[in-house]
Amino acid sequence: MATLVTAPRGMRDFLPAEKARREHTLGVIRGVYAHHGFDEIETPVVEDSSRLHAGLGGDNEKLAFAVMRRGITTEDLHAATAPLELADLGLRFDLTVPLARFYASHRAELPTVFRAVQIAPVWRAERPQKGRYRQFVQCDIDVLGEPGRLAEIELVQATGEALAALGVQGTFVRINDRRILTALLGTWGVSDADAPHALVIVDKLDKIGAAGVAGELVGLPSLTGRDAAGLQDTLTALATADWDSVTGAEWLDAAAFADLLSLREALPDVDLRFDPTLVRGMGYYTGTIFEVAHPDYAYSLGGGGRYDGMIGRFLGQDVPAVGFSLGFERLVDLVTIPDAQTTDAVALVFDRDVDPAVLATIKREVMVDHARVRLERRTKNMKNLLAGLVAGGYGSFASVSADTASATDLDFKPLT
Amino acid sequence: MATLVTAPRGMRDFLPAEKARREHTLGVIRGVYAHHGFDEIETPVVEDSSRLHAGLGGDNEKLAFAVMRRGITTEDLHAATAPLELADLGLRFDLTVPLARFYASHRAELPTVFRAVQIAPVWRAERPQKGRYRQFVQCDIDVLGEPGRLAEIELVQATGEALAALGVQGTFVRINDRRILTALLGTWGVSDADAPHALVIVDKLDKIGAAGVAGELVGLPSLTGRDAAGLQDTLTALATADWDSVTGAEWLDAAAFADLLSLREALPDVDLRFDPTLVRGMGYYTGTIFEVAHPDYAYSLGGGGRYDGMIGRFLGQDVPAVGFSLGFERLVDLVTIPDAQTTDAVALVFDRDVDPAVLATIKREVMVDHARVRLERRTKNMKNLLAGLVAGGYGSFASVSADTASATDLDFKPLT
Repeated sequence: MATLVTAPRGMRDFLPAEKARREHTLGVIRGVYAHHGFDEIETPVVEDSSRLHAGLGGDNEKLAFAVMRRGITTEDLHAATAPLELADLGLRFDLTVPLARFYASHRAELPTVFRAVQIAPVWRAERPQKGRYRQFVQCDIDVLGEPGRLAEIELVQATGEALAALGVQGTFVRINDRRILTALLGTWGVSDADAPHALVIVDKLDKIGAAGVAGELVGLPSLTGRDAAGLQDTLTALATADWDSVTGAEWLDAAAFADLLSLREALPDVDLRFDPTLVRGMGYYTGTIFEVAHPDYAYSLGGGGRYDGMIGRFLGQDVPAVGFSLGFERLVDLVTIPDAQTTDAVALVFDRDVDPAVLATIKREVMVDHARVRLERRTKNMKNLLAGLVAGGYGSFASVSADTASATDLDFKPLT
Repeated sequence: MATLVTAPRGMRDFLPAEKARREHTLGVIRGVYAHHGFDEIETPVVEDSSRLHAGLGGDNEKLAFAVMRRGITTEDLHAATAPLELADLGLRFDLTVPLARFYASHRAELPTVFRAVQIAPVWRAERPQKGRYRQFVQCDIDVLGEPGRLAEIELVQATGEALAALGVQGTFVRINDRRILTALLGTWGVSDADAPHALVIVDKLDKIGAAGVAGELVGLPSLTGRDAAGLQDTLTALATADWDSVTGAEWLDAAAFADLLSLREALPDVDLRFDPTLVRGMGYYTGTIFEVAHPDYAYSLGGGGRYDGMIGRFLGQDVPAVGFSLGFERLVDLVTIPDAQTTDAVALVFDRDVDPAVLATIKREVMVDHARVRLERRTKNMKNLLAGLVAGGYGSFASVSADTASATDLDFKPLT
């Protein structure tokens, strides 16, 4: 019986306490992003299948859940040569492809520079494992139509303040630029054809170390015969590079680095750390890339970058774009709901013989002065009942008997 | 190009103004339901396919979007005899089936009487038409584990207050009981086997009138040879029945009617109208059924009823249950966002030569005193820009030039 009633594999039910924590967290993030002038939008959870499989989602495309066409006949099944032929829709695997489609569809109705917030679930058919789910929430902000560094400044400021508002202090931001990475690969002799693959390899530096990355790099056609040990030394040095150590370096794209320095100047309150080995997975990034981290956590709290070429794939005209995504599912575990939300929640514990009509009237009276009022039938096991109320965030309770005529007769006792 | 970038058929994108209106509406509903002691939960958007097609969803099961199994081979395609054999999941078509599954899974962690709020999208592959969408939001409240009329009282009170808080005044509630309907059908000679079909026919009274319903009823096996004209007269009389006119009627289930009268007594502030022809579509209702309406609107604003047998289908043990669903997509069109939300939203219109770092600092200063601050690049067509700000809910704006050193230099002008 038990397996029959669980949520689908890799997905979760949220009970009241966890749901409240999630909604509280989302509310704080929403508030900060609205404060910064971002506008929330929403798109359907499914997109046309051909759009999801247009090559903009990288490896995520393979993880998309496919939705079957309606009205498929047995003949259709037998004529099909691949499952996707039977799908006309798919659950979105990110919020970036839908945003690009949305912007192309509604551009005339949007501000010239559009600051979008999207807070919504996405789906990926990954092998379920601890901390990785098949349905999870993404919190994305994107600035579309702003070519200058103002876009990056606003994104980094808004993100930092969202984290601070959630009580996550002490974060820092690793920053790099895809142009710096591309130039760096060029100095190693990586061909344009090998560059995308080389970026995927460098992205594994944290996981497989400088020796591992160097070993894989010399397997690229354009690096055949190169000295792996030399590359390893270079990578080791790069991994600890900072703003000062790279100044004047031969491999450094000077224009891109000047842009990063100007960001640093414009964000004096942000702990911005230059990291020339930061790649970020997606193939569509074209400029600045960044990642928010915290010294206490091995994982990043979010990241993003500039992807100037992507909107054009739908619009037929390039639009500058920068986006940032918070890792909501990790973040929500770090957040605690303030006590203030529970102090004004009260329960009325009523006896079996109380008239429901009288009880309903008393409840309404109590609701005038309290934020949450829950009715609870008195049970033999009061200890359990009261413990449940505490867990549910209730601060006090009063007993209602058949003699209770109105709310003024009630005697509230604190819980805990 | 245009068709390539639209939302999937029958589904909608929400632009900032509409998204804000929806979130505002949801926030008000959430607040009222929390105030009444209801707890919000969340389930995944998909359920196991076998669960969605277990016979609890009525006609909605046929409208479920099916999600394909991963890893389907060409051999699987050719061996399949029906499309559902290739699906292991489906998008939920309502929030009641997931709630029953959730409750069966988590009962031990929930209060004895569980008051659930679910505010979430559902999907139905209906033929798209005006006002009917393939993805739409349902707002459900359910009381599980309370056999007495207290459950109905709390649901009707909470719903009425949610509507009032949204500014929808003057609603009334049509109420009936499935037991009254069943007894009524019995007096006409409808057999138990024909009863479900007879209910579907009576449910069409608004649409096809008393003559139409009588005509269809006499087509039922157990009513063969019955006089359609006599039934039509009965139906016409029932359609205008009220609390007083039915008192003592022979067809009236006295116990069920006494329960309805006690609800009426317990809800003196609610305009509760007895309607013995009210059916509500779903087959799972077992007792009270109700529908909220407004004299200005032809459609109902929501409805619900008691479905004591359903949870048992998953739990293996009956649990009393009453639910109410607000018609969110209709309701949201009736709601206007209060002006107060726009007065504290301001825009900073900046010249091309303003240093982004200075601009970012000024923005932060202005944010201290304002709820929303948006940066806007000055354009030749200022009229358009200012109109866009008004549409976006901004109340005033100030210009920022290269000479502006800080927020104290700004001169805010009202937008209107």
